[in-house]
Amino acid sequence: MKTLQWHAPYDVRVLDAPVPALAGPGDALVRVVRSAICGTDLHPYRGEIPGFTPGTVTGHEFTGVVEETGPGVRGFRPGDRVVASDVIACGGCWYCRRGWHYQCAEVGLFGYDTVVGSTAVAGGHAEYVRVPFADTVLSPVPDGVTDEQALFVGDILATGYAAAERAGVRPGDTVAVVGCGPVGLMALKAAELMGAARVLAIDPAPGRRAMAEAQGAVPLETGDDLVEQVRELTGGRGADVVLEAVGVDASLLSSLEIVRPCGTVCAVGAHASAAMPMPTGLAFGKELTLRFAVGDPISSRDRLMPLIRNGRIDPTFVISHRFPLAEAAEGFKVFDSGQATKVVLVP
Amino acid sequence: MKTLQWHAPYDVRVLDAPVPALAGPGDALVRVVRSAICGTDLHPYRGEIPGFTPGTVTGHEFTGVVEETGPGVRGFRPGDRVVASDVIACGGCWYCRRGWHYQCAEVGLFGYDTVVGSTAVAGGHAEYVRVPFADTVLSPVPDGVTDEQALFVGDILATGYAAAERAGVRPGDTVAVVGCGPVGLMALKAAELMGAARVLAIDPAPGRRAMAEAQGAVPLETGDDLVEQVRELTGGRGADVVLEAVGVDASLLSSLEIVRPCGTVCAVGAHASAAMPMPTGLAFGKELTLRFAVGDPISSRDRLMPLIRNGRIDPTFVISHRFPLAEAAEGFKVFDSGQATKVVLVP
Amino acid sequence: MKTLQWHAPYDVRVLDAPVPALAGPGDALVRVVRSAICGTDLHPYRGEIPGFTPGTVTGHEFTGVVEETGPGVRGFRPGDRVVASDVIACGGCWYCRRGWHYQCAEVGLFGYDTVVGSTAVAGGHAEYVRVPFADTVLSPVPDGVTDEQALFVGDILATGYAAAERAGVRPGDTVAVVGCGPVGLMALKAAELMGAARVLAIDPAPGRRAMAEAQGAVPLETGDDLVEQVRELTGGRGADVVLEAVGVDASLLSSLEIVRPCGTVCAVGAHASAAMPMPTGLAFGKELTLRFAVGDPISSRDRLMPLIRNGRIDPTFVISHRFPLAEAAEGFKVFDSGQATKVVLVP
Amino acid sequence: MKTLQWHAPYDVRVLDAPVPALAGPGDALVRVVRSAICGTDLHPYRGEIPGFTPGTVTGHEFTGVVEETGPGVRGFRPGDRVVASDVIACGGCWYCRRGWHYQCAEVGLFGYDTVVGSTAVAGGHAEYVRVPFADTVLSPVPDGVTDEQALFVGDILATGYAAAERAGVRPGDTVAVVGCGPVGLMALKAAELMGAARVLAIDPAPGRRAMAEAQGAVPLETGDDLVEQVRELTGGRGADVVLEAVGVDASLLSSLEIVRPCGTVCAVGAHASAAMPMPTGLAFGKELTLRFAVGDPISSRDRLMPLIRNGRIDPTFVISHRFPLAEAAEGFKVFDSGQATKVVLVP
Repeated sequence: MKTLQWHAPYDVRVLDAPVPALAGPGDALVRVVRSAICGTDLHPYRGEIPGFTPGTVTGHEFTGVVEETGPGVRGFRPGDRVVASDVIACGGCWYCRRGWHYQCAEVGLFGYDTVVGSTAVAGGHAEYVRVPFADTVLSPVPDGVTDEQALFVGDILATGYAAAERAGVRPGDTVAVVGCGPVGLMALKAAELMGAARVLAIDPAPGRRAMAEAQGAVPLETGDDLVEQVRELTGGRGADVVLEAVGVDASLLSSLEIVRPCGTVCAVGAHASAAMPMPTGLAFGKELTLRFAVGDPISSRDRLMPLIRNGRIDPTFVISHRFPLAEAAEGFKVFDSGQATKVVLVP
Repeated sequence: MKTLQWHAPYDVRVLDAPVPALAGPGDALVRVVRSAICGTDLHPYRGEIPGFTPGTVTGHEFTGVVEETGPGVRGFRPGDRVVASDVIACGGCWYCRRGWHYQCAEVGLFGYDTVVGSTAVAGGHAEYVRVPFADTVLSPVPDGVTDEQALFVGDILATGYAAAERAGVRPGDTVAVVGCGPVGLMALKAAELMGAARVLAIDPAPGRRAMAEAQGAVPLETGDDLVEQVRELTGGRGADVVLEAVGVDASLLSSLEIVRPCGTVCAVGAHASAAMPMPTGLAFGKELTLRFAVGDPISSRDRLMPLIRNGRIDPTFVISHRFPLAEAAEGFKVFDSGQATKVVLVP
Repeated sequence: MKTLQWHAPYDVRVLDAPVPALAGPGDALVRVVRSAICGTDLHPYRGEIPGFTPGTVTGHEFTGVVEETGPGVRGFRPGDRVVASDVIACGGCWYCRRGWHYQCAEVGLFGYDTVVGSTAVAGGHAEYVRVPFADTVLSPVPDGVTDEQALFVGDILATGYAAAERAGVRPGDTVAVVGCGPVGLMALKAAELMGAARVLAIDPAPGRRAMAEAQGAVPLETGDDLVEQVRELTGGRGADVVLEAVGVDASLLSSLEIVRPCGTVCAVGAHASAAMPMPTGLAFGKELTLRFAVGDPISSRDRLMPLIRNGRIDPTFVISHRFPLAEAAEGFKVFDSGQATKVVLVP
Repeated sequence: MKTLQWHAPYDVRVLDAPVPALAGPGDALVRVVRSAICGTDLHPYRGEIPGFTPGTVTGHEFTGVVEETGPGVRGFRPGDRVVASDVIACGGCWYCRRGWHYQCAEVGLFGYDTVVGSTAVAGGHAEYVRVPFADTVLSPVPDGVTDEQALFVGDILATGYAAAERAGVRPGDTVAVVGCGPVGLMALKAAELMGAARVLAIDPAPGRRAMAEAQGAVPLETGDDLVEQVRELTGGRGADVVLEAVGVDASLLSSLEIVRPCGTVCAVGAHASAAMPMPTGLAFGKELTLRFAVGDPISSRDRLMPLIRNGRIDPTFVISHRFPLAEAAEGFKVFDSGQATKVVLVP
């Protein structure tokens, strides 16, 4: 089968590989119908992940059709349309039982074996994928939901939703979204869905602000007077909730500034600092709550899928480019260049 | 000033009366700009409230302008645009401190003195109203919100919102609204606002179902096969949440049937049975939650007003008729006849 | 092996039966070390369950040691000390994923095949029990917790805890427990554990009230002036929360009377009425919440076990009698007579 | 009347001053019966508060008797026994209505005028105190609760409770308390009250650890192997909840280490860093929640007082020393030296 494999920074190649075999009784084999390139994939692409294994088949957002199931799989049969969770988790351990699948002892991320967890599994930038713990990792795609609509339930929609949910967005809130990339845009939709009176969409890039504005948000430029602008729009108080979807110190520090006293900042950007200069005096004086969320498709997809099916959310608006899998290397290039909002691959 | 006074069943009259004087340091005098006739007003109109006092000025939904304030009023000044809560409450007692203003020891309802509570106060079907506990009862109407948009924050919008909030509607839920009168329609909007994937709107009247459908709901006819219909729409389970906005035994019993196991029914209809035949076996087997809510504008208006101001909700869609205050008796007649969804009076 | 089998009302017999064999890959065989007779077992004993199957091995509270596991069992090995949940559930369906195991499509109750659910399984009044869905149904008993301490995690402790949890007991609350049998006593302990300032223990039987008082509660006699007594103790308001653990109309109706406005009644008694005369006018005027709970060991045992292990709860105080399994019929007789609080059987 | 006044670092003096007069209609005059020296008072004492006003009467924990009330006070009369909140708040603004009194636009702290807020009011280290917004700031002390039992409801008990409540302690949790000074000890009691299975009490001082152990906690020494020790005690996971009651970077950073994935750290220490080196990579990987709490007696005292009255909490165990007000300077010296857990002053 065709696969996209990482070989070195800025060097990904479409290569043939054998169709994976089932490796355990709970595995399923899925024929991929759509996959996507995620911002997370850019880290190895740009060489930011030391030790990333050459030959890794990348890709953790994909939908497809079940081809084969192990004898222990209870919930799926060949022919079922499915979307996979980006996170691979056992479904039965102490963390999984609580719905915290990223903390599973056997956690993995499709196509990202060297970094997250112990379960190394080839990813979804391929024609077929072996899915471990299929009863936990897969979810059915109902009639009336297209493969592309279901695709982002496996990562960015679930991640944006996790931000709004963990932040506790409530009806009437003013919610600021810091960073209007794919995850930020999904957080915007989730905040709206939970009743935000208004979403302030903050980004330095005019194109991203325009995209957020088209989704109903109030665009604000990142800049020196951001705190002042947010105050003016909120009667001097600040945003009730801030959803941070960038993942660098500056954006999180800015979030702490623009949130109102007793408000909540939820960071879904992939933070990696060892020592962000945290203003604890400010946080204590304002009695803030700061939450970090990775996003968890397994916990939220039962809520997200009916919303898509009933037309309340259609996440496909973020798709800017589609490439055949054979041209996936070009897809990476375009996505890395910042020209694309979201790139979908078609096997 | 002109007032609408109840004299006997089906006998309400527009009569002159003196402009009320402030009676305490916390009072305010409000010049009414808009008021509405509420379903609750039909109870005395139809003679269903024994002992209702002849001469009572009715009306508990009104917006207006502050004319005068007592020396103890801190938050309002003459000229402020305001909407009153239907419920009059002290703001400081054990119940008020918890946000449960209907349980206030000094509770009252504008224009409804003989039934609810001890604070008898003339209502808003008048040119002027005395508002006790003004700092608690009144709320500012911000620029950009019209008098009619703010009007229902004082009762039906807050009541519909209370239903959805107390029921704990969550994103992705299927919510059934039983009874699509003005409160039911507001509950529908509130459920949608909290992320319901779908609202099933149940009513025997085709006109009401059509109105709910125009607001995005799935209309369902009340009838023998209702349980079956709801099951079919919900994969055999039933509705996650049911908001009951009728107030009679049949509608509440039906709600208990159509809700799924471990689901919640919230009744905001004004129930008054001494002995509804409650199926406790069913409720135990299904592990149900049944909540009763009166609605509380004082607790929810800070969330509702920004939603109106930002265009997320516009409750004026329920207004079907407007009458000058001088023709208020005709307004009651039309509303009682079932021809009107909601009647607004203009002084 | 020895078993206790139901044959007819008031006719239970200790008889030999073959040790059960595993029937599926997820099964485990457990050697019983302790089992208990539950109030639920008295229903067939007294002939209240039409169609109960003669020959049924009863018993749904038991602890023991794993003897054998099917190839699909991941979490247990022979030799592990375990306590079973009374409810048998698949662990993977829509309801199970939400923690509502009693609503599982394949639900069963050990030793109670004709009534609850579809999974007929012999119970724990035996030397060995086959446990389906072992990864879901069983829970480890840690060192430092005795078999008898763990025993009630499988039913009555979990049920009492469910009452307090679903009722939302908060620190400082006055909690009334209606019915001080084994489940009521556990609800009392759970309420205390969640910070109740005071538990009012209501029961007609002096012995049960005394037992509740010994656990720190304020005993109150069921009777005409109960409402008045509760009001006096609560500054005129009523109990913040009522936990009803009887299961008949009178006790639930009384609960609705003694709870304060905006309070919560949680019924864990096994209600079975088709038409309890429910005062909806009272419930609406007081804005009550009424919840029904069956209790769910699978959802709460991870919280309960550490509390036992650290000495915060020791549920063995309810054990009044112990019998060898060979004398189990005598155990039923004593329990049915009301002389025993809780009867434990020792194989 | 006698007062204790701050004059310069390490220079506090007992001096005569006029009994304060009421300054507004909502004021009350309270005759002090007991007051306490708080850790917060040591900041000006040690000269850590630049610009602290010489002549300031300190003290924000006090109980007493109402002597006089302004015409606007509704809830209190002369002769009422009361405890004051440390925080002075209007009770009616946007923040106060939500129960966030420290964010009130007119916020103040008794005896601490130069730092917190705009409402400068002499403190409780005096024979009489003027109490602004008396209906909000004061709370009745019921019969059966002594002045000393009620005293800490005004600050340290409410603060410790806020930590546990905002952290969401649940039954069965392992809770670590970092810092076992007066607030930490109260947090310990609050965690226990909310059902913690176990409290790990972490402090470098053996005396404080002993005090925590006497209250039922597991004492742990601060040190290099703390993370390892906590892991060993928690099956490798870490504490479910950490309550940080020190207020310096090291203790908060340590808290982030010892909390388990998806756990919560609540900091009630008075943090004041501009740039604590925050490990956001760790926090993101563990999906942590970090909350800051100041504590709010006005919001929690209705829960705390019944707990004291019913003997569930008796916070007087922290009192190690009592001094007559005339010897208050000696009290400060002893408290500053670390010999005292808590010093009470008796006018």
